[in-house]
Amino acid sequence: VLDVDESAHFYADVIGLSETGRDECGRAYLKCWDEHDASSLVLSQAKAPGVDALAFKVRNTPALQQLGNAARRAGLDVLGLPEGDLLGTGERVRILLPTGHHVDLYAEKTTDLKTATVEDPPLWREATENGIGVARLDHCVLYGPHVERAMEILVSILGFYVTERALDARGELLGAWLSTSGNPADVAFVRHAAEGKLHHLAFRVESAEQVLRAADCFSMHRVQIDAGPFKDSVGRRLAVQAYDPSGNRIEVFWSPAIARPDAPPVTWSWKRAGFAMAQRDQRACERLFADVT
Amino acid sequence: VLDVDESAHFYADVIGLSETGRDECGRAYLKCWDEHDASSLVLSQAKAPGVDALAFKVRNTPALQQLGNAARRAGLDVLGLPEGDLLGTGERVRILLPTGHHVDLYAEKTTDLKTATVEDPPLWREATENGIGVARLDHCVLYGPHVERAMEILVSILGFYVTERALDARGELLGAWLSTSGNPADVAFVRHAAEGKLHHLAFRVESAEQVLRAADCFSMHRVQIDAGPFKDSVGRRLAVQAYDPSGNRIEVFWSPAIARPDAPPVTWSWKRAGFAMAQRDQRACERLFADVT
Amino acid sequence: VLDVDESAHFYADVIGLSETGRDECGRAYLKCWDEHDASSLVLSQAKAPGVDALAFKVRNTPALQQLGNAARRAGLDVLGLPEGDLLGTGERVRILLPTGHHVDLYAEKTTDLKTATVEDPPLWREATENGIGVARLDHCVLYGPHVERAMEILVSILGFYVTERALDARGELLGAWLSTSGNPADVAFVRHAAEGKLHHLAFRVESAEQVLRAADCFSMHRVQIDAGPFKDSVGRRLAVQAYDPSGNRIEVFWSPAIARPDAPPVTWSWKRAGFAMAQRDQRACERLFADVT
Amino acid sequence: VLDVDESAHFYADVIGLSETGRDECGRAYLKCWDEHDASSLVLSQAKAPGVDALAFKVRNTPALQQLGNAARRAGLDVLGLPEGDLLGTGERVRILLPTGHHVDLYAEKTTDLKTATVEDPPLWREATENGIGVARLDHCVLYGPHVERAMEILVSILGFYVTERALDARGELLGAWLSTSGNPADVAFVRHAAEGKLHHLAFRVESAEQVLRAADCFSMHRVQIDAGPFKDSVGRRLAVQAYDPSGNRIEVFWSPAIARPDAPPVTWSWKRAGFAMAQRDQRACERLFADVT
Repeated sequence: VLDVDESAHFYADVIGLSETGRDECGRAYLKCWDEHDASSLVLSQAKAPGVDALAFKVRNTPALQQLGNAARRAGLDVLGLPEGDLLGTGERVRILLPTGHHVDLYAEKTTDLKTATVEDPPLWREATENGIGVARLDHCVLYGPHVERAMEILVSILGFYVTERALDARGELLGAWLSTSGNPADVAFVRHAAEGKLHHLAFRVESAEQVLRAADCFSMHRVQIDAGPFKDSVGRRLAVQAYDPSGNRIEVFWSPAIARPDAPPVTWSWKRAGFAMAQRDQRACERLFADVT
Repeated sequence: VLDVDESAHFYADVIGLSETGRDECGRAYLKCWDEHDASSLVLSQAKAPGVDALAFKVRNTPALQQLGNAARRAGLDVLGLPEGDLLGTGERVRILLPTGHHVDLYAEKTTDLKTATVEDPPLWREATENGIGVARLDHCVLYGPHVERAMEILVSILGFYVTERALDARGELLGAWLSTSGNPADVAFVRHAAEGKLHHLAFRVESAEQVLRAADCFSMHRVQIDAGPFKDSVGRRLAVQAYDPSGNRIEVFWSPAIARPDAPPVTWSWKRAGFAMAQRDQRACERLFADVT
Repeated sequence: VLDVDESAHFYADVIGLSETGRDECGRAYLKCWDEHDASSLVLSQAKAPGVDALAFKVRNTPALQQLGNAARRAGLDVLGLPEGDLLGTGERVRILLPTGHHVDLYAEKTTDLKTATVEDPPLWREATENGIGVARLDHCVLYGPHVERAMEILVSILGFYVTERALDARGELLGAWLSTSGNPADVAFVRHAAEGKLHHLAFRVESAEQVLRAADCFSMHRVQIDAGPFKDSVGRRLAVQAYDPSGNRIEVFWSPAIARPDAPPVTWSWKRAGFAMAQRDQRACERLFADVT
Repeated sequence: VLDVDESAHFYADVIGLSETGRDECGRAYLKCWDEHDASSLVLSQAKAPGVDALAFKVRNTPALQQLGNAARRAGLDVLGLPEGDLLGTGERVRILLPTGHHVDLYAEKTTDLKTATVEDPPLWREATENGIGVARLDHCVLYGPHVERAMEILVSILGFYVTERALDARGELLGAWLSTSGNPADVAFVRHAAEGKLHHLAFRVESAEQVLRAADCFSMHRVQIDAGPFKDSVGRRLAVQAYDPSGNRIEVFWSPAIARPDAPPVTWSWKRAGFAMAQRDQRACERLFADVT
């Protein structure tokens, strides 16, 4: 982000995360109310918007080493980052994807249960109405080259499975949505000439009505809305997309869809991909694919 | 069920499943619209309501054998059931739990994608409004003795994790909710003197409004409602419970909650358990625990 | 109410009204966020719960006099109350109904637009999430004798129209719902031996989801819930009923129904009345009619 | 409409009205499920899309004559149309507004209670899910010159009251929303150089979720969506606008707002009017005012 203080304020007051710490590099750590780990979003000062790395938690430290070794054996650039480099986070294994993105793996993170109470939790929590009150950081959509190869790495090395795919006019892979959980996507890749781009970071709310409330909150705070609320067939999402103060696109969405690893992936053909991804608003669709190669 | 035809009609027309087959034993096979496997519910003729077995799909056939062997090594009664014994279903490994329930495992099941389209799926599907239009069979709540031991078996042998626990006045385990997915429960056990009891079978719909519509549909079809719509803190469910024509209790619910294996389980103390499980309706709560030993 | 301070606190913090004043008799005046008049609820100290009077605004002062005269000509007890007797309220005409209830009419009331902004109103208002955040005081349900006569007075003298009626087993009037607006009820009468009873006071929220949130708020504040959330066919309401600190029953409801004076009234026969009024919960129904004569 | 058969099919199958008759001129009569009168929409063959007349029901025949006389005395062109000219409709008084629109008044219309049952009505009705399943025809927005004069006529002669107003940069009237009921608008006028234009015809559904479902239904039927779902501050509507087969713009909306004749009208200043009317989507706003003079 261009200004950590301004962004920390935006993510806390408008999006509804809690700030749980700052480190000596000036990075701000935030979490959503339904997350038990002490941070899911780390904001660091930069000259341009974008994403430094996305990170996934793995089962335990042996699994971390095993995944790092598997990535090395597959010829990928792998970097070790020491424990404590990120606040309350164990050692990390960083893998460079052919799309130009860093994927970090880690096994340890301190918890913060102030909003995610586990002993006789309350029926209703004020934090759910703090700003937009997003429940969880859900997924991000990344743009870059070699999406087919990135998809293969996530599936064969990191244990993801493909939930949805979009094909171009020649039947080649345009985009892939991948999950390690019951969510329709934990990460997605869309084909693009430039490396390492972030299309958007998506936060989950708990009902369609809350997506509409999120759009109202964006309007109230004079946050620039990019698209929506719109229905996205991919993942059956109702989504609204807007810009954070640095120009990063963020999404607030709700989806009732549940993914399962044994289910055949959904495939969107080229002639229906636009319909699928921005169903009702052709303009949003044209913008979406404007820079797809 | 007491009458397969009557029940198949009820689950198809009121609950909204599709019947996908009958076998030569007269069993009816049904699935929900968002499920890709050809059956999730099998109805068989019986003299009393109840559950014969609950079944979980495992990754592949080697995993099936491995899990069966692990259960045998743990001293459990394990039975092999041949491929084809259930329509379109591979061989099964049946494990007898100390609560008196059968858990079946299988690796293969034929798919039926008529309602769960995966090639350019439509934005909206008629099947979602066929009767109550439940999306998925989600979990069942079982009553029996030795719930602590059952929980340990599911965790240590079958790979489940505990999402929520309720304790009695002495701090001993009263009930446990377990998951292998992102759902707050794939199965739950509540302590009870009698073996092998089914408290309810729960189907998932996709919004709170659909739970209210489900209650309307039950009323319209003169189906006896047992409780609700009520909010259940366990799994943050909005639920309505009613009886099928044989007297089996079924639940239609919606929950926005997402479970994760690394999250600490939610624990309900005795003095809050009633509040937790049937928050607003003390009578429902009293009924729930009426026969808990 | 038994204690004005305690009740003012309850209606402000839990139900979500704003206190707009107190008078020298110690009465507290409150309004809902979507109301432009400075008060819709007046709390006064009493030895028992109940309703002193319900009040309707009329078009203008000549209409006020004309309605008072018409009531006198019909042989009703009519009392004039001076301007200022209630804070910011013009002179009132009080009519005694044969059910034992007072109906007050008035033409003037000061406005308070702090929450009901009319110049470039905001898209979203914090007041909607202050406690339960009820939008409007909608109606009350009164119990007493001679409901048929009360209904006739409201229709022929005061300009109400009947929206719904419930009949007893002999086909005689058990209850009547009346409106002067597009709401399914501005007031309702149910037959009862005792005079002047209040069954409940109903506040409107703006969606089904907000009724569910209201029930959560009641639970969070340890307010005793009497019934619901339940669907009430009368007026197609989704409602939750609870008790204020003095024991007055209050309802928070949402209804999409629109009433029109030229529409034939809905009639509920005896055998369906219970179904109609508390559809899914026979116990709630039995309670409802427990003391109906 | 350009083709009565095609349009009758569209309004019945997609929008969800019931066709209740055709007359010898080939006009098709339709009603929404929650309306008790036998028709609210009459489709007639034309060379171009547009609205022939909008019509309001008045209390009784004397009121009809009295309103016609008042309009004549105010210098308006008034035309009498005989009983039976429209199927099941009494005599009509047609008033020509300075905006170029016809307003018809009538006192009598036959009822059709097949979907709007009034004897022990069911809790849930299939008609609510027939296509989009709109509950009621709610209002239309008309474009034309002399909106200030039209507003005065509706208020002083026809008994409407102003609920909302939008002003241009000079503080002059740009648009006015008027009601005779609890609805935020029964009709609205927006300033435009050309006479007698229809901006859109709006149908009401009963929840936000149903507006989202409507947008899905439009997509499923390949109906061209013009805008939305979008939040409209005017009337606090959630709306989706699309085109009927003849090119008439129609809106499906939900609003929780309730209007009252004694409430001060909401006023939108010029700098906020765009924000107000198409809050989140500046493009929709620009289109809305593209042809406003």
